[in-house]
Amino acid sequence: MGFQYLTNVDLEQARGEYCRILLANGMGQKTEWIKAAHSCGRITSQAVYARICAPHYYASAMDGIAVKASDTFKATETTPVHLQPHQYIVVDTGDPLPENCDAVIMIEDVVQEEEGVRLYASAAPWQHIRQIGEDICAGEMILPSYQKITPAAIGAMIAGGVQMVQVLARPVVGIIPTGDEIVPPTADPAPGDILEFNGSIFSAMLKEWGANPKIYPIVPDDFEKIRAMIELALEECDMVLLNAGSSAGREDYSCQVIQKLGEVLYHGIAIKPGKPAILGYRGEKPVLGVPGYPVSGIIVIEQILKPLIDCWNHRIEEKPVQMHAVLSRAVVSGLKYREFVRVRLGYVGERLVASPLSRGSGVISSFMKADGILEIAQGTEGYEAGSQVEVRLLRPEQELRHTLVAIGSHDPLLDELADLIHRENPDIFMSSSHVGSMGGIMAARRGENHIAGIHLLNETDGEYNTAFVKKYFPRGGVRLVECVGRTQGLMVAPGNPHHIRGIEDLTQSGLRYVNRQKGSGTRILIDYLCKKQGIDTTQIYGYDREEFTHTSVAAQIMSGSGDAGMGIYSAAHLYHLDFLPVCMEQYDLLIPDYAWDTPMVRQLLKILKSEAFRERLLALGGYEIGEPGRVRQRF
Amino acid sequence: MGFQYLTNVDLEQARGEYCRILLANGMGQKTEWIKAAHSCGRITSQAVYARICAPHYYASAMDGIAVKASDTFKATETTPVHLQPHQYIVVDTGDPLPENCDAVIMIEDVVQEEEGVRLYASAAPWQHIRQIGEDICAGEMILPSYQKITPAAIGAMIAGGVQMVQVLARPVVGIIPTGDEIVPPTADPAPGDILEFNGSIFSAMLKEWGANPKIYPIVPDDFEKIRAMIELALEECDMVLLNAGSSAGREDYSCQVIQKLGEVLYHGIAIKPGKPAILGYRGEKPVLGVPGYPVSGIIVIEQILKPLIDCWNHRIEEKPVQMHAVLSRAVVSGLKYREFVRVRLGYVGERLVASPLSRGSGVISSFMKADGILEIAQGTEGYEAGSQVEVRLLRPEQELRHTLVAIGSHDPLLDELADLIHRENPDIFMSSSHVGSMGGIMAARRGENHIAGIHLLNETDGEYNTAFVKKYFPRGGVRLVECVGRTQGLMVAPGNPHHIRGIEDLTQSGLRYVNRQKGSGTRILIDYLCKKQGIDTTQIYGYDREEFTHTSVAAQIMSGSGDAGMGIYSAAHLYHLDFLPVCMEQYDLLIPDYAWDTPMVRQLLKILKSEAFRERLLALGGYEIGEPGRVRQRF
Repeated sequence: MGFQYLTNVDLEQARGEYCRILLANGMGQKTEWIKAAHSCGRITSQAVYARICAPHYYASAMDGIAVKASDTFKATETTPVHLQPHQYIVVDTGDPLPENCDAVIMIEDVVQEEEGVRLYASAAPWQHIRQIGEDICAGEMILPSYQKITPAAIGAMIAGGVQMVQVLARPVVGIIPTGDEIVPPTADPAPGDILEFNGSIFSAMLKEWGANPKIYPIVPDDFEKIRAMIELALEECDMVLLNAGSSAGREDYSCQVIQKLGEVLYHGIAIKPGKPAILGYRGEKPVLGVPGYPVSGIIVIEQILKPLIDCWNHRIEEKPVQMHAVLSRAVVSGLKYREFVRVRLGYVGERLVASPLSRGSGVISSFMKADGILEIAQGTEGYEAGSQVEVRLLRPEQELRHTLVAIGSHDPLLDELADLIHRENPDIFMSSSHVGSMGGIMAARRGENHIAGIHLLNETDGEYNTAFVKKYFPRGGVRLVECVGRTQGLMVAPGNPHHIRGIEDLTQSGLRYVNRQKGSGTRILIDYLCKKQGIDTTQIYGYDREEFTHTSVAAQIMSGSGDAGMGIYSAAHLYHLDFLPVCMEQYDLLIPDYAWDTPMVRQLLKILKSEAFRERLLALGGYEIGEPGRVRQRF
Repeated sequence: MGFQYLTNVDLEQARGEYCRILLANGMGQKTEWIKAAHSCGRITSQAVYARICAPHYYASAMDGIAVKASDTFKATETTPVHLQPHQYIVVDTGDPLPENCDAVIMIEDVVQEEEGVRLYASAAPWQHIRQIGEDICAGEMILPSYQKITPAAIGAMIAGGVQMVQVLARPVVGIIPTGDEIVPPTADPAPGDILEFNGSIFSAMLKEWGANPKIYPIVPDDFEKIRAMIELALEECDMVLLNAGSSAGREDYSCQVIQKLGEVLYHGIAIKPGKPAILGYRGEKPVLGVPGYPVSGIIVIEQILKPLIDCWNHRIEEKPVQMHAVLSRAVVSGLKYREFVRVRLGYVGERLVASPLSRGSGVISSFMKADGILEIAQGTEGYEAGSQVEVRLLRPEQELRHTLVAIGSHDPLLDELADLIHRENPDIFMSSSHVGSMGGIMAARRGENHIAGIHLLNETDGEYNTAFVKKYFPRGGVRLVECVGRTQGLMVAPGNPHHIRGIEDLTQSGLRYVNRQKGSGTRILIDYLCKKQGIDTTQIYGYDREEFTHTSVAAQIMSGSGDAGMGIYSAAHLYHLDFLPVCMEQYDLLIPDYAWDTPMVRQLLKILKSEAFRERLLALGGYEIGEPGRVRQRF
């Protein structure tokens, strides 16, 4: 349980030093000759000069006849000139200029006669002739050094007689996954097995940046084996990524191995996630120790490795697109690190709203869902809700302007809606955040969503939703749109081993309940039902164990760490759990007036009313389908 | 010489109809299963659901010890709890939660004792434990349909147990080059041979758009052979491009062949370049006849084929980046077509200046040099110089802001400067337009360039440049910076077959002169020399034949279509021509004050003074090198 001290060096300083040392040691001076025809996207390593002229011969620039200009000098409107067949040659555009000709006359200006042609205007020498080198002159520079080759540049090179071109070699980046618990991807892992997917993520990123990734076999946590694999990778590659083992846990050999093989510039960078990165090298080759958590790893290779690749390719990092956004909730950050927070973004009206995503460094789905990155500088405590912040976009702004922002209660049908709406409208996207029914109402009050799924039971009359909407929108400005009736009930393990009959059995000794978070409609429902039946919820073991979606409650029960949980039928169905129906509830969509007349909401209503949606609901199961898309009430 | 009538249909209308017909016929419904790990950039053809939870087991979220939370419930600051070794298990981050444990305590909060550990705080059940499905729940939708797969999405799929993913198949696009005169790329073509490079340009473009190009062998202009090749391509591909033969020349079979094999929707679109395009199809497969001139072909496949590929991929065309720019000179357009004019762009101060490039449809170099496209709507006559126009950017705006705009007299040393400045400064680019010395002075007066190469002889005192600068900048505001002395002279064929001794021999009968354009320093020089020696320039055959650069004059002499031309030594040297020195002239750089303090000009001055530049000049030959980069005079 011994610890090694990590440095907390500033990111800019660390990568600047790293890059300087590697360049001084000779990084990035590899070139190769490739076919010009296959060089698109590659970068020239030296200037490219034309070897021949283009065109390389005098060519007709028109369909017409080639003539000796002096034969036509006397032609006018009133005194046409007649040319004998031997005085002209019919040419098409691009045909070489025949011997002894020095002009071309357009076919439109030629009057065909029995024998020969008649002309009503003289031709100027060299008219309608493409000069030699009109496009490219031999010896001219076609491309300077360090230029990205475009399709048109390929054409220019071939036209200029250049068939092979010298380009910067792509850096070969070796990726070494390490760890006793790491296994190749499978759909059936044993407990404790960690699927090796970092290599695939990093490979895809590296390819996008112009590097050639090479994934090595998984190496167990063994000093000698790791050392041998790095040795091999250093021989075969230009850069080496050692994945995992960069922190200071019991079996983290990375730093020691790199120290043994070369140098370690820094172990520990003042960024979060990603702080335990190891900046090592041998000679001109970087050996980067990357944390095992995918999100940390992504940040480290993006912040440390990408600049090295840009440097190798003599390219300046593309300036990311930055936008101002309004933060939907507070983000607290430690003073010690520069933090990268992933956010969902959506335009609601003209406001770009940023909602922070889960910051767990293991949560790869948050990176996939992220529309942008919010950077919180070192020494800053974070931002209040409603702050104006600067975010780096990860998606085109245009897409964000056409994204339907759903913030509210969770139901798997939202994902099906997202799929259907994008299938029908390639220009419309939908993003959902699950914050519960009350969270959805609050977001609508702040003008941060287009729709909110809600299912809120009014305890006094047993009605759904309307009482809450009236209370939180006293001045109106919203519509309640019918979606579905849902069967709520208790999800229990298959076969119902604890013989639960209803919520009255939840206090049963030895029974472990899994709850939903406060503010969710399902939590309000279970609270209400317990109160109505006089059940003391402090007597329910696990009543404070909160999950954020129906499916995650089901997942805990399936795994055996809980015995019962309240949720909808479709979630139980998905996990093959037994289900004890408790009640039917109304799940509606709250749509504020400001969102009503947007193309996204119009398309959503169309999808709600469609046969395709009905089919998806039937497949999910447990829904009562009335008239989805009907406006129940306008407030 | 018969003609076929071409339609002149509106572009939007034509491509809309084309796409609708092809979709109705079933275009773009091909899918394939591929490995998730290798799916980056591909597009899902259906929603992807997780097969397992991630994490799929309870895991420690910290380095520390796993305990039964209830064992720690009584621990406080003042009454610590002691745990025996059998009551806890040391765990690292990511380790599976041991049997019977339901909490993890961070190592920092654990006090190691001789036997066991001491705790000063109780642990809450499930603290520091990653829940099953915290990241992804089994059955949850990971990706909707028609979504581009990102590196993070690959990670999410593998973490969710998804190893194979169904994606849209990339359309296979067959490219058939046709024409008797077309030959494979070579550096030694015979006169009349046209190098086949369109296939390589189109392939590179298609790959960028997500299609798989397949280039077929060159087919001669033979109806049956073309028909057979299209048949083959229709069997093997999803789309077919027939290159060349789309116009109405003598040997243009394309339209007839396509009509024989399928349908022709339109032959002739109201765009320029690109009007003779043929929009044909058989069933769900488009057969597009593309003009042979590369620039026309590029416009046609960009405007007609790309929308089909986007449609196939269920993607909305990305909105191009449009910017306002000031037009540096007038552009005249026909009323009949929508015209696409390629422009060079450069920021001079805060003004984006657009300079139209050569509009010849054979000129591939103009496409390579283009920074943007100016569209002139059908029914519009064009724009005046100085107009505010909208241009579509082909390069990132950031690059345009760091581009040194050289407009003025031509010298090959400018290309060398461009190469050196970008080699030293990856973020700085240089673009040169050759408009002659007077053109450069006028551009500087209008504030459209950063530097202008000039070499203008004052006839009265034989001095270079200063008199002109004084005249055109009476209120000053510019600097004249020394560049080089250049040897001007007569370039003649190797061995000087006409025994030319000097300009006095240019009137010699049978001698063909090649001149430079009016306004160029070299033209002013030859005019002056002739006047001084009393030579009547109307007696010089070819005095009106104008070329725009030293190298293109040299190219004409090398080709044998001219016998003599005035130019600099380095151009003659490049083409192995004989050279009769006439005089030494001063080639300076004019730099306006508004450009002086830019990073581009500062770097240029550094390069001018460098040893590397001197070496390049020596290699080019014919220069007198004094103190390049020295300010000769400030006005």
